[in-house]
Amino acid sequence: MADAPTIDSLIEANAAFYRAFESLDLPALEKAWDAGDRLFCVHPGWQALSGREAVMDSWRAILANTGKIAFTLTRVEARIAGTVGIVTLYENIDSQVGNERHRASAIATNLFRYDQREGGWKLFHHHASLAAAPDGKMAVN
Amino acid sequence: MADAPTIDSLIEANAAFYRAFESLDLPALEKAWDAGDRLFCVHPGWQALSGREAVMDSWRAILANTGKIAFTLTRVEARIAGTVGIVTLYENIDSQVGNERHRASAIATNLFRYDQREGGWKLFHHHASLAAAPDGKMAVN
Repeated sequence: MADAPTIDSLIEANAAFYRAFESLDLPALEKAWDAGDRLFCVHPGWQALSGREAVMDSWRAILANTGKIAFTLTRVEARIAGTVGIVTLYENIDSQVGNERHRASAIATNLFRYDQREGGWKLFHHHASLAAAPDGKMAVN
Repeated sequence: MADAPTIDSLIEANAAFYRAFESLDLPALEKAWDAGDRLFCVHPGWQALSGREAVMDSWRAILANTGKIAFTLTRVEARIAGTVGIVTLYENIDSQVGNERHRASAIATNLFRYDQREGGWKLFHHHASLAAAPDGKMAVN
């Protein structure tokens, strides 16, 4: 059955985005993002990026510098407003850059546009920011 | 003339939200936010807040602890997708807490819902996070 604009398919599209990132799979990330140019992306601690070229360049740079990364997604909340899917969540991240292991948590706002012809929900907005740990310290490493 | 769901009215609703914050005007902030309970708010460095009560409690706490605050909004980009208004921007913040003055920049994702009966665009999602300064340092103070 074809994809449909349901909460379940939205949550699955969001999960597929993180699986693509975990797999360091650039073609899958390119497919997860909308093909149009009105893309917006904030990686934790980065400046805001606009446009498909800048966003995809950032993923190439991140994948090239990431040895391993794994996400545990918590507090996932999804809603649909017309053709826009809104997903908020905590990204609980275990990553390895060179020989260094990092643990961090980030809060993400992910916005998807539904397009049946393009295969369903496409990410066009990703805003991720480090979350303070419960003791109030920034969980940078 | 009544408000209409245009880019101009969306940008104005976004500006009104920051004017309410600058004025430390709780009733205006309560009016800027949607009356429903599906609200989501991330203040820079805070945990994610869900629901109108938690969000409004956070504003009460922020206003009570802020002497002066002024915003210069830059890179404001607005788009409308159905009934959802999406605004992204840099908040360039000058604030005073007690005798301490702070300067910081944050990137914000603001989502609005259009409701003619309720007077136009209502904020239901605010995700603000500190932006790295151009030299790569976090602009915390």
